Amino acid sequence: MEKVRVVISGFGNVGRGVVASLKRNTDMELAGILSRNPARVKKEVSDVPVMDVNDSDAWLAALKPDVVILCGGSKNDLPEWGPKMAKLVNTVDSFDNHSQVPEYFKAINEAANSSGHVSVISTGWDPGIFSLERVLANAFIPGARAYGFYGLGEKGGLSMGHSDALRTIKGVKDARQYTHAIPEAIDEIRDGKNPAFQPGDMHTRECFVVAEDGADKDEIVKAIKEMPGYFAPYKTNVTFVSQQELDTKYAGFPHDGLAIAAGTTGDNNSARVEYRCVWGSNPEATANVLVAHARAVARLAKEGKKGAMTILDIPPSYFSTLDREELLKHWI
Amino acid sequence: MEKVRVVISGFGNVGRGVVASLKRNTDMELAGILSRNPARVKKEVSDVPVMDVNDSDAWLAALKPDVVILCGGSKNDLPEWGPKMAKLVNTVDSFDNHSQVPEYFKAINEAANSSGHVSVISTGWDPGIFSLERVLANAFIPGARAYGFYGLGEKGGLSMGHSDALRTIKGVKDARQYTHAIPEAIDEIRDGKNPAFQPGDMHTRECFVVAEDGADKDEIVKAIKEMPGYFAPYKTNVTFVSQQELDTKYAGFPHDGLAIAAGTTGDNNSARVEYRCVWGSNPEATANVLVAHARAVARLAKEGKKGAMTILDIPPSYFSTLDREELLKHWI
Repeated sequence: MEKVRVVISGFGNVGRGVVASLKRNTDMELAGILSRNPARVKKEVSDVPVMDVNDSDAWLAALKPDVVILCGGSKNDLPEWGPKMAKLVNTVDSFDNHSQVPEYFKAINEAANSSGHVSVISTGWDPGIFSLERVLANAFIPGARAYGFYGLGEKGGLSMGHSDALRTIKGVKDARQYTHAIPEAIDEIRDGKNPAFQPGDMHTRECFVVAEDGADKDEIVKAIKEMPGYFAPYKTNVTFVSQQELDTKYAGFPHDGLAIAAGTTGDNNSARVEYRCVWGSNPEATANVLVAHARAVARLAKEGKKGAMTILDIPPSYFSTLDREELLKHWI
Repeated sequence: MEKVRVVISGFGNVGRGVVASLKRNTDMELAGILSRNPARVKKEVSDVPVMDVNDSDAWLAALKPDVVILCGGSKNDLPEWGPKMAKLVNTVDSFDNHSQVPEYFKAINEAANSSGHVSVISTGWDPGIFSLERVLANAFIPGARAYGFYGLGEKGGLSMGHSDALRTIKGVKDARQYTHAIPEAIDEIRDGKNPAFQPGDMHTRECFVVAEDGADKDEIVKAIKEMPGYFAPYKTNVTFVSQQELDTKYAGFPHDGLAIAAGTTGDNNSARVEYRCVWGSNPEATANVLVAHARAVARLAKEGKKGAMTILDIPPSYFSTLDREELLKHWI
């Protein structure tokens, strides 16, 4: 069987995760990497072609991708590059700016439909697996609200987006933000109370900040706690640490989450479902889910499908390497 | 919008659960109930037509079902009635005899394809949701084994199939069987050991038995512990109780389960996913999942799809009442 030719566009933590994931998915192969700065990537990668993402005629001809996994950021990269790429190739991305998903879907759908490609947007573990679990929970327990919690373990979960937000504050040299779930909030849901939570009822935020020399620490704390959306709605704790402490005690990208819903069935019998995931590396977990979606995209494209899709639009067997016979025999 | 007309075939605990579930799914309506013994069902149900399942010309004309939910047993009812029904109407069932799924799928697929109907087989929470979660876990964490555990709570989970098996033993008047997960086995998986378990490594079985007057209790215990498949592979505990004790202390149909898989991503970072469900009523939970699949079947049939399917073949959005716009806006 011919392997699915996967190309990575954008080489950060998720892109590195995709490289690693493809080594464990032997029905696929890494055909090359695209970057705005190929020279930088070439320092790290020597066994596959690294090409300039802007030179699409060249990389389309040389790499012949079945699917391109877009590993750029949701804030600036994907809104620009998502639709551009969907005009050229089949794509998968992890666009995670929840409030802008409808608009992004529309732009990608137009591009993919006009060019006859398949583009799966907004997948990973959240959005992605958690989106799926929330929708299933709501379908199987009608009336149950579905909630997402993050950082249930002792150390909490590292939020890349919130860490980036901290680094934009004047006087902040470096920073990492850990999200903590509020256990009492989870208990309320498990008790079947189906509560209408505000964001601040579910999570607290813990910030480890390296201040620049001479920076006004009180001003930094104030700027963090008042930052709308990111920190203002939450109980937020700020601790100043040295760069060395940040690099050693708060290394890595651990994250974890819980999608949960509870309600009743029939004659008021309790019903509860919980999807829990614990990842040693958040970007690698996202990469693994992206790669499984790349497999699905290659199949859907072969069937002549086109347009934008989410995880909700794909039959789950498309993610699997196992054929129907094997699935029916051992997995149902 | 016109409501999906659902007919129930077979009126036991799951059938009753479907009646209750349809009341909470307002896009569907109960059009009628089919039984081999309509007189018995009519004693309990007065607000919808109850008809003889053998009189298919009559009920097809009178009830005009979009979907029939088959609530018969997997041992005798479904192998006979599943293919028969798939020739007449779109169907959903919870066939749960795992080893015979391939054969059953083939029979239903032939019937449904020849008549142009859609038939979803083997759905509920296991098989069904758990099948889906196992396949997703294996796709997202390649190489990770996916396990199913049942009865994690203190009381364990009531197994209908094993209770029925106990009642076939000479001298047993009534009985209920509770399955208990072995916590140490779950710990091994969480520790990332990816163990190759035998069934007896994962669960123990607890039997509450009402003996007939004068029955040989030692013989009953021996017959239970030696029953192949059901009890022989497990550590099994048998307690004799009075009928009154059974009816009061061991009433209801509670059940719960855990689908779990753990492995690594990228550079050996741990990765673990767990799907947990806790049901006050096992048959009502199964019914709720069947009803969501009936919604999907009605849609798939409208699109001109045909043949047998499992939960793995259906885009998850088809289970939901929410339209694409709402899903993109609030659920991704």
